[in-house]
Amino acid sequence: MTMIGVLGGMGPLATVDFLDRVVRLTDAARDQDHLPMVVAHLPQTPDRSRSILAGDALPLPYLLHGIELLNRNQVGLVVIPCNTSHHWYAQLSAHSAAPILHIAQTCVAALPGDTGSVAILATRGALASGIYQAALDARGIGAVVPPEPVQLQVDACIRAVKAGALDAAAAAIGSALARIAGLGVGAAIMGCTEIPVAARGLAVPPVMLVDSTTELARATVAFALARGWNKAA
Amino acid sequence: MTMIGVLGGMGPLATVDFLDRVVRLTDAARDQDHLPMVVAHLPQTPDRSRSILAGDALPLPYLLHGIELLNRNQVGLVVIPCNTSHHWYAQLSAHSAAPILHIAQTCVAALPGDTGSVAILATRGALASGIYQAALDARGIGAVVPPEPVQLQVDACIRAVKAGALDAAAAAIGSALARIAGLGVGAAIMGCTEIPVAARGLAVPPVMLVDSTTELARATVAFALARGWNKAA
Repeated sequence: MTMIGVLGGMGPLATVDFLDRVVRLTDAARDQDHLPMVVAHLPQTPDRSRSILAGDALPLPYLLHGIELLNRNQVGLVVIPCNTSHHWYAQLSAHSAAPILHIAQTCVAALPGDTGSVAILATRGALASGIYQAALDARGIGAVVPPEPVQLQVDACIRAVKAGALDAAAAAIGSALARIAGLGVGAAIMGCTEIPVAARGLAVPPVMLVDSTTELARATVAFALARGWNKAA
Repeated sequence: MTMIGVLGGMGPLATVDFLDRVVRLTDAARDQDHLPMVVAHLPQTPDRSRSILAGDALPLPYLLHGIELLNRNQVGLVVIPCNTSHHWYAQLSAHSAAPILHIAQTCVAALPGDTGSVAILATRGALASGIYQAALDARGIGAVVPPEPVQLQVDACIRAVKAGALDAAAAAIGSALARIAGLGVGAAIMGCTEIPVAARGLAVPPVMLVDSTTELARATVAFALARGWNKAA
């Protein structure tokens, strides 16, 4: 049996949200139609954003440990529902026998063809890493990095989700999105997997949202179903 | 690092619900305060209830495979958010170096001391296995097995959650609980992990509900926090 490998715990609620999307996006009438997975849920991995900004690689040994765990356990694909970790995508890929879906490339591939520009809602580390700017540039789409007052609200949203404070998180992201709309930008990428957990608490988002968690889940389900991993051997 | 081992996928949404409870029940301000886990999400495991009723053990090799996977990966505890699987608890425990929390015993331990009798909402296999009757008997609490018309609605609820039809599942369990209340029974154990997923869709349950998913999650978090598994080595 071949399984989906999920390197998670970064953060914990975001990983649960990703798993929920994988299950709900799988067309299934009974347990056995669903997809098998191994999840390495490793929240002790040091803060990715902090390390990118500081220029160190403290999270890398933890991420490589998770990649090894998954590869030891019959996974045919690795997915990492943490955008910022993809700063080390090249090193992780080189260390993994199973291919790794790139969350930012997967998410940007889901944007409509006529998208002119899009705001990137992400950690400061992911913004400094440039993973979304590179994926958008490859498609000729303009990247809007939020101005400092908006980024402060994005930071607050992410921190609140990690602490389980979902009402505060929804308020922070709602306020950030209202300011984004005020800049005349019509779409935003939720390029940190904490953000969709918060944004689902909003009644009506003021701009079109593209959700990196959902897009990664959609690509994961398509990859695994195409290979029949839910068919018992 | 020692991790919590979760043998899941039975069913998939119930496992996601269990993981969600573990995360929300952990008092944490940041990722690194949360608990590390390995999840073997194995939905191809054959139907447990059917096998118990047929008198075969088709799921057992799948369950043992999951137990082995978890024990190979540094887990210090195994939990199985599937009540019916506990029919094979003795065999699974004998095969696991890590202790396994027993979901029915954990759930029954959470009942108030003055509980006189309680209805058991579970699969027909779990009812035939008697895991809840034994745990209740050990505490001197009367076990009420639902009459056939109620059990048919419990069956429908469980089947609907496994297929992702949560509205239909909530309607079925709502109707079952109204009939339980009509019998004069004041409390019910949700002794199948699909049922709480459905019951959360009810505005006001007509009887007191004890949730095997939440109680297993609570015991899991307490076990792991007491041993400091969220402290990076």
